[in-house]
Amino acid sequence: MDTTTRIERALLAALSTHEVPGAPPKLAAAIRHAVFPGGARIRPHLCLAVARACGDDDPALADATAVALELLHCASLVHDDLPCFDDAATRRGRPSVQAAFGEPLAVLAGDALIVLAFQTLAAAGAQSPGRLAALITTVASATGMPFGIVAGQAWECEPRVTLSDYQRAKTGALFAAATAAGAQAAGGDHVRWRALGDRLGEAYQIADDIRDVLADPEVLGKPVGQDACHGRPSAAHQLGLTGAIEHFEGLVAGALAAIPECAGAPALRALVRMESERLVPKAWCEDAARRVTA
Amino acid sequence: MDTTTRIERALLAALSTHEVPGAPPKLAAAIRHAVFPGGARIRPHLCLAVARACGDDDPALADATAVALELLHCASLVHDDLPCFDDAATRRGRPSVQAAFGEPLAVLAGDALIVLAFQTLAAAGAQSPGRLAALITTVASATGMPFGIVAGQAWECEPRVTLSDYQRAKTGALFAAATAAGAQAAGGDHVRWRALGDRLGEAYQIADDIRDVLADPEVLGKPVGQDACHGRPSAAHQLGLTGAIEHFEGLVAGALAAIPECAGAPALRALVRMESERLVPKAWCEDAARRVTA
Repeated sequence: MDTTTRIERALLAALSTHEVPGAPPKLAAAIRHAVFPGGARIRPHLCLAVARACGDDDPALADATAVALELLHCASLVHDDLPCFDDAATRRGRPSVQAAFGEPLAVLAGDALIVLAFQTLAAAGAQSPGRLAALITTVASATGMPFGIVAGQAWECEPRVTLSDYQRAKTGALFAAATAAGAQAAGGDHVRWRALGDRLGEAYQIADDIRDVLADPEVLGKPVGQDACHGRPSAAHQLGLTGAIEHFEGLVAGALAAIPECAGAPALRALVRMESERLVPKAWCEDAARRVTA
Repeated sequence: MDTTTRIERALLAALSTHEVPGAPPKLAAAIRHAVFPGGARIRPHLCLAVARACGDDDPALADATAVALELLHCASLVHDDLPCFDDAATRRGRPSVQAAFGEPLAVLAGDALIVLAFQTLAAAGAQSPGRLAALITTVASATGMPFGIVAGQAWECEPRVTLSDYQRAKTGALFAAATAAGAQAAGGDHVRWRALGDRLGEAYQIADDIRDVLADPEVLGKPVGQDACHGRPSAAHQLGLTGAIEHFEGLVAGALAAIPECAGAPALRALVRMESERLVPKAWCEDAARRVTA
């Protein structure tokens, strides 16, 4: 089974526990809308690639970890799109959960997805009880306070924020957890794998800032120019576009260098290179360079 | 140490992990506002009473379970008070989180509290890894979809709902988890203890409906008449006031009968009786009876 199929099947299995007689049907539909069809599923891909590099000796636990990370990511998107934050009408090229189902169900869908993430981990963790506590600690730390994605979103409510603190929490935390928890799910050493996720997370956030300036909204599946519109900290505004692209390329090189030597290293390097091209196509970099030298 | 002190100390310890340099200060303050000062802390009291009845051989895990249940309860109150649900300005006699900190921080405070609940369980579960998976499953099932408190709230978004399904999910689920998880935290048999929580949860929801009609808003610490105002299913409206009070008394008797015979049974019976009087004072019942016979 290829990794994409493995991830989609695991997500479907997790959500199927919701869709039973006696469940509130609108909330079940809102949750499904939040998760399917997905985006690039980069966090679960990264998690499973690291689990594989560490031997993947408990595939059900690795699957659950990948699912938990993706559900938490989806939950954060659903809540970020609420009227009190971005008030986004579209996401992934179609109506956002709040636009399609209304604000109350969007709040509840996010809540239910957070709970399902930990429930999925617990259900798979009975097989390897010695790994579960550390695994949940890694995933929860990347999600909540003081340094997880919820904390990252909360920095938007503060009058003063440093760009790196904001980005490390808002995006970096879940990437770092994807590599660390991927290792833990397979009994590997999470410390050895964290740097890869850290650097990819930073690269991803900078790519997001660049895309918010450069991308076609049709390609992005959501409106562009949102950072400037919401006054959010942005590397593209702080470093300039070519500066941000150079920084992105440096971080991708750093991520490649951070992959520990192991049998799975070539596959991971290929994943990082492919993802880098998907996020910030080489053509954009050349285009931005031309604009500066013109 | 008395149980109230034990609960408040454990809650303070859990929240102190948030309040570190580098954490977004407004969100930390909103979370503290959501948890302190608390209400009756009935779920953690119930959880610890059952853990004690089962031997309380891992007090840190019992504390974490009690804390997780209370944090999840607080999270649900913060989200229920949002403008898109009850739009409540007050809670526990002072401004609600959304009134004091604004809607964005109220959304994030609820999210962070859900995450902290599972993080607290995981941090304490490393000592008894064999108990953790089942414990998290119990707590998560009571919180999320398809039958937990989030599902209960979602029934308010459906055109048709049966009162018992709504109440079982919205309130009963976390009470049933309080007794079941209290047993699990101490290595006890959760099946034997679930009926007590089930009945108390049902009694509590009916008490809430009765209080929404009868109580003084000063005593309640929140506005009354909210069920009718929001068109929510209510036992007080469906059964009439005296019918609802009779049903409440029957459920309390059922809860007392459901306490398994053990050394901790007298303490639990005292707790149930005290809570029953706090929720629906005997004076109210007599008053309601007088109104009917007058």
